[in-house]
Amino acid sequence: MLPDTHKHQTLENENARLQAFSDGVFSIAITLLVFNIAVPRDLPQGQRLLDALWHLWPSYFAFITSFLTIGVMWINHHNLFKVIVYTDHVLLALNVLLMLMVTFVNFPTAVLGAYITNATEQYTAGVFYCGTFAVTASVYNLLWRYAERRLLAESVDKEVKGAISRAYNRGLALYWLTFGVAFISTSAALLCSFALALFFALPARVGKGGGEGKP
Amino acid sequence: MLPDTHKHQTLENENARLQAFSDGVFSIAITLLVFNIAVPRDLPQGQRLLDALWHLWPSYFAFITSFLTIGVMWINHHNLFKVIVYTDHVLLALNVLLMLMVTFVNFPTAVLGAYITNATEQYTAGVFYCGTFAVTASVYNLLWRYAERRLLAESVDKEVKGAISRAYNRGLALYWLTFGVAFISTSAALLCSFALALFFALPARVGKGGGEGKP
Amino acid sequence: MLPDTHKHQTLENENARLQAFSDGVFSIAITLLVFNIAVPRDLPQGQRLLDALWHLWPSYFAFITSFLTIGVMWINHHNLFKVIVYTDHVLLALNVLLMLMVTFVNFPTAVLGAYITNATEQYTAGVFYCGTFAVTASVYNLLWRYAERRLLAESVDKEVKGAISRAYNRGLALYWLTFGVAFISTSAALLCSFALALFFALPARVGKGGGEGKP
Amino acid sequence: MLPDTHKHQTLENENARLQAFSDGVFSIAITLLVFNIAVPRDLPQGQRLLDALWHLWPSYFAFITSFLTIGVMWINHHNLFKVIVYTDHVLLALNVLLMLMVTFVNFPTAVLGAYITNATEQYTAGVFYCGTFAVTASVYNLLWRYAERRLLAESVDKEVKGAISRAYNRGLALYWLTFGVAFISTSAALLCSFALALFFALPARVGKGGGEGKP
Repeated sequence: MLPDTHKHQTLENENARLQAFSDGVFSIAITLLVFNIAVPRDLPQGQRLLDALWHLWPSYFAFITSFLTIGVMWINHHNLFKVIVYTDHVLLALNVLLMLMVTFVNFPTAVLGAYITNATEQYTAGVFYCGTFAVTASVYNLLWRYAERRLLAESVDKEVKGAISRAYNRGLALYWLTFGVAFISTSAALLCSFALALFFALPARVGKGGGEGKP
Repeated sequence: MLPDTHKHQTLENENARLQAFSDGVFSIAITLLVFNIAVPRDLPQGQRLLDALWHLWPSYFAFITSFLTIGVMWINHHNLFKVIVYTDHVLLALNVLLMLMVTFVNFPTAVLGAYITNATEQYTAGVFYCGTFAVTASVYNLLWRYAERRLLAESVDKEVKGAISRAYNRGLALYWLTFGVAFISTSAALLCSFALALFFALPARVGKGGGEGKP
Repeated sequence: MLPDTHKHQTLENENARLQAFSDGVFSIAITLLVFNIAVPRDLPQGQRLLDALWHLWPSYFAFITSFLTIGVMWINHHNLFKVIVYTDHVLLALNVLLMLMVTFVNFPTAVLGAYITNATEQYTAGVFYCGTFAVTASVYNLLWRYAERRLLAESVDKEVKGAISRAYNRGLALYWLTFGVAFISTSAALLCSFALALFFALPARVGKGGGEGKP
Repeated sequence: MLPDTHKHQTLENENARLQAFSDGVFSIAITLLVFNIAVPRDLPQGQRLLDALWHLWPSYFAFITSFLTIGVMWINHHNLFKVIVYTDHVLLALNVLLMLMVTFVNFPTAVLGAYITNATEQYTAGVFYCGTFAVTASVYNLLWRYAERRLLAESVDKEVKGAISRAYNRGLALYWLTFGVAFISTSAALLCSFALALFFALPARVGKGGGEGKP
């Protein structure tokens, strides 16, 4: 590894490129999801385009769920790097690992879109899909726990740290729970995934101090 | 949702990453449109490459119309976030929804390119295409209406807000009108879509105070 | 078009997002070129992978030429927006048009890779390829000519403007010349395209005041 | 080449766009790697999706190795452009060449994923894969050696320069060694590639002054 020699850089520069790189990966990974919806070509005899488009609903469902999930992850990353203002090699490496997972989401999404209506195989596709999110949430947690100890802005107080840690633990538990549900019922697990994405995408309750940017 | 704890950040930082992420999605979604033009392989006997390239005109048309439409959306986003200087969780969520629509445009574009010359199915493809733009314009409007009430720079006066609102309402009406036209005539609706993209891409009239950056 | 209401923004912000968006398109368009090299699957009996990889040379050639050409365009864009510091709606629209061309380059590149070894059709593919570059150079010229009159930094003197204009005119002439050559000889035109990309990628001669960043 | 006329720009701006463009290419190239894992469609009779997903391990392996390798390259680029603060045309051109290699990695990755389990052809795929990394490391070295002489920040002392040069030489030797190993044993070379990526991704040893951002 190239020695990270210029540690006396301005603060802003420290994470600027980590964020730029991550924003790039997030925005590409999220955009490419749409290519997992296959354009219906060669309609079978008697089938209309409208029916064909309609029958793609599993792909739409997988697209929207994955899009919202990655979107929420991006919002989290955005908020996280407001408090993580220092950087070091471990953080860069953990972030690369996180990006690996974010990128990988495309694959189980495509598999789910292809097998969700296959009675025999939807089980495997669902477990694979929910498992990917559970692992991703774990990497997120790891990154936060590492950063929390040494790379936060000095102005971040204990209360804030506690609130973030609690939010992360809750998220982690919910994603592993959903993974567990996938072994019992595919439909239930997918509904959970979708609900989780929606739930996290909705604004935090007013009064809890979350979310308002305007002073 | 991770609590958004650092609300006392500098203004610039507030929207910097929202814009970076959105620029990423816009630029990727717009670039990927070109992949909806299929390279002609295995020319049928007697057909020349020149003919094959020529017969791809529906794909070129869909590519250019979608490219201009997303390009105009980007310019709008660019202008919008000059006046929206604060951010909050709802805005981030609405922006994720907007990005979902921008990304999705690729799919109806591919469907249109594939079915525009199919006499039976061009109707469905056209309605789907124009409908996607109408929904996207609606999400845009929603975002503006939300931001308008609480997230604008203090320096933005009533007149400016009114002008933007009027422009947005006009755009919304035109895109829904085009969607309506698609139920009557596919060709007319596609021409409207193209005309709308061109019209919005052309500079605002001189004297209306729009567009000149040089003081 | 949404009125561009905040014209009194800081200079830096003016072009920051135009550049961010363009950098996004450039980097995506250039990266996606690699996907025009098709992975050899299902080797015909008796053919080795090494041969198959070797026979892909037309795709490598098209990839490298297009990569260098877009790379040079990016360097140009980079240099251009050091002198163009103001922005207006026409410039944004011209830039969207330029991005459309940059993006489109992927299509003739794929066509060239597919037909360069086809004795009958390489002619069409070559003309299409060189023609795309000629049109792109023209859009670049248009953008410069528009910006030159009103959007340059005040510190840019006549001499500098003249030097850029001359460089742009020379480039334009060379790309249209190459397009002309494509009607006579495909091989010659492709060599010209490659030579042009290399020539423009190489540093300007020392003493002409081009290129050194270190004071 | 357009003359690079505004050499008296602020320092930050100098490399800002080179970094933005490179971050774009890195993040796209790294994200697209996931598309080299083919979604199993049309399962052969008697095969389950779980088996099919399992049998994709060569693609997962190639994905992870390439992802980590490009990730490490990005971290290097990140660290390198903390010390390289000036820019000139040669640097831009070398960086375009580096980006060409980073982008190209996708192709040998796909080839490796497709042929790693093919007893006859894995040899060629492995040599091609490791060779690409060796060439990429060489371009990286070239860029550093060029920049080292003239484009570093004045505050970079001899010791730091020496440390970076040694790190680069070591990396170069290891990648060429791996390339050599690929001619003897494909498995050994791939394990080396993976180990190299892991090794470089892990943080530098404490005490060597590498990696800690927090003062």
